[in-house]
Amino acid sequence: MWAQHEITLRPRARGFHLVTDEVAGAVPELRDARVGLLHLFIRHTSASLTLNENASPDVRRDFETWFGAAVPERFDWTHTIEGPDDMPAHVKASLLGPSLSLPVAGGRLALGTWQGVYLCEHRDDGGPRSVVATLMAQGGEPAA
Amino acid sequence: MWAQHEITLRPRARGFHLVTDEVAGAVPELRDARVGLLHLFIRHTSASLTLNENASPDVRRDFETWFGAAVPERFDWTHTIEGPDDMPAHVKASLLGPSLSLPVAGGRLALGTWQGVYLCEHRDDGGPRSVVATLMAQGGEPAA
Amino acid sequence: MWAQHEITLRPRARGFHLVTDEVAGAVPELRDARVGLLHLFIRHTSASLTLNENASPDVRRDFETWFGAAVPERFDWTHTIEGPDDMPAHVKASLLGPSLSLPVAGGRLALGTWQGVYLCEHRDDGGPRSVVATLMAQGGEPAA
Repeated sequence: MWAQHEITLRPRARGFHLVTDEVAGAVPELRDARVGLLHLFIRHTSASLTLNENASPDVRRDFETWFGAAVPERFDWTHTIEGPDDMPAHVKASLLGPSLSLPVAGGRLALGTWQGVYLCEHRDDGGPRSVVATLMAQGGEPAA
Repeated sequence: MWAQHEITLRPRARGFHLVTDEVAGAVPELRDARVGLLHLFIRHTSASLTLNENASPDVRRDFETWFGAAVPERFDWTHTIEGPDDMPAHVKASLLGPSLSLPVAGGRLALGTWQGVYLCEHRDDGGPRSVVATLMAQGGEPAA
Repeated sequence: MWAQHEITLRPRARGFHLVTDEVAGAVPELRDARVGLLHLFIRHTSASLTLNENASPDVRRDFETWFGAAVPERFDWTHTIEGPDDMPAHVKASLLGPSLSLPVAGGRLALGTWQGVYLCEHRDDGGPRSVVATLMAQGGEPAA
């Protein structure tokens, strides 16, 4: 069984944001998937998706601090016409990647207890972000 | 055809460890897969999976050295209650990623000669690690 | 429906190179895929694949500058027998990753307007590079 949905995430401030429920909720066919994979793909080059700790906002703030220091706005960039936050956003987007593939079992994402999906917004004013969710799965009753 | 297994990797020291045979061996259905993908997913936010050079232990030691320097314990972290190795572990986990998707051909992983699966243990005392292996494939005889 | 092709990319200079059309064109079954995923996998540990801005060559040059600074040749490496560009290439390969999973819709890659596939060549003289393309999809007419 296959399902595919395009999800529009509302504009967020630069930083890291938990969107697990928002993206999983947009794929109602998940509950009928006995075994499968959910693929999430962001259709942008200045934002990304990653999986990390879903409890403490401190973790997400520290992500922003580290990535800002590792890929600084003041650097030997040549592509500067779209603003100082643009080229760092491109590099961060590739370091973290545009997609996640998540295992599905018994009608749910088989994540670890502390794992959540982050939208990584690398622009100061990125606007809404488009995510394509593709579910491929074997249907049927969950195994006992 | 679909198969899914949960694999428990025994505790390892902080660093990078070759686990190719251990994870592939846990999916006996691989040998019946003519064309497919094997998805490996670690259910943690302070350890990760990557693919790299499978021969020299020097490479794995140099990975630890570089990641330790790039994501240091002494930094402007705010999330410090779980110890100095915790926040760097979260960042390293997202830089390397929680999953690998590997092509399968003719009943085997279609890796390059020098490619091996690394368990990347970013905590000093991470304990056992849980990996979900999901195989999706077309069965039948290998093509001639 | 499944299809799998091995693609040989001609040798490129160290740096980041747009190869979207080259890899998509090697999978003619794409046009018959209504919904699916295209998985691209590079069979090397010193080159990688990523997705980023497909318009400006400046962006690709800035990628090379940043990665060269972040993972320098002069560092505390122990694995040096294959030359000064070897160990940085391994680390860059894992930071960017060996594979991409791209959504397919209506017989085409469902990429964003500005997204293109980069071959990331991290060696000075990497030679030809082998990529395995695996398409898994549901066939049939595109939805209206």
